[in-house]
Amino acid sequence: MNDKTKLIPQFVDSTKVFSGRVFEVTVEFDDGTIALVRQYRHPTVKYMMELPAGGLDDRERPEEAAARELEEELGLVAGKLEKLSEFFVSPGFCAEKMWLYLATDLTETARRPEDDEVIEVVRLPIKRALQMITDGEIEDAKTIIGLMLAAPRIGLSAFEPDYPAA
Amino acid sequence: MNDKTKLIPQFVDSTKVFSGRVFEVTVEFDDGTIALVRQYRHPTVKYMMELPAGGLDDRERPEEAAARELEEELGLVAGKLEKLSEFFVSPGFCAEKMWLYLATDLTETARRPEDDEVIEVVRLPIKRALQMITDGEIEDAKTIIGLMLAAPRIGLSAFEPDYPAA
Repeated sequence: MNDKTKLIPQFVDSTKVFSGRVFEVTVEFDDGTIALVRQYRHPTVKYMMELPAGGLDDRERPEEAAARELEEELGLVAGKLEKLSEFFVSPGFCAEKMWLYLATDLTETARRPEDDEVIEVVRLPIKRALQMITDGEIEDAKTIIGLMLAAPRIGLSAFEPDYPAA
Repeated sequence: MNDKTKLIPQFVDSTKVFSGRVFEVTVEFDDGTIALVRQYRHPTVKYMMELPAGGLDDRERPEEAAARELEEELGLVAGKLEKLSEFFVSPGFCAEKMWLYLATDLTETARRPEDDEVIEVVRLPIKRALQMITDGEIEDAKTIIGLMLAAPRIGLSAFEPDYPAA
């Protein structure tokens, strides 16, 4: 058993289809910036820029978990939390399902990160984040969807007609 | 071992991170329609509408596999096949990577479907397909990305500012 296996215990039980439940949040500040999280991902063997996200317990409601994670990890309370979409990440081989929210009307509070989590929060204009999709700097499916679905809600096109650059 | 396990042999080897390579294609006809595939997905236990997609062998180039699959499964030869994006489906737990193409300038040819594949091809306007994302009728991550990234290339916004309906 190698190090990577230890990180994904779900794979050890070969009698089950992997069926995780996950939430993600596009956090939009009043100044038009959004929050991305930069973290090392063992499966892809690199640092990746992603929207804040987290796993759900069996009986947990996605919107409650999303609100709690925002407060603990980003130190933010969202006055408004809207569901933008729910979708399956790769229905051909697993049942992992994702709930996507847009958080706005934010108030800052104290962060309470868990000990084992090393994440770096990066705040940047959503236009810049959309450009990072075009440029291949954002390459996480849930983050691409979360940014593209949030953009029109905050007065932007997901992409200009000339996307991507030749 | 249950039926589902037999369908996803990758899960049997617990010492590896799942690392499939997959291509998908947004097929755009001259009349503004695109092709979706309707098929039963065991992991999600339902029929789903998705863009045409398929797995890659270790040494296979994604664009070659995409062109071959278009011809075999849809009976189409693409005069133009452009890469729109590449991304990871769920980097938190697996290394599955996806290559997305836009196929245009299509010529019809004879289909050569493999015996074990039961797929239904549905042709519809891309505007209707985008509406199906809003309405939750399309809930496959790669298909959401494939339609949203293709839309601006063929003169449409991915979404109107009022997406999704309240």
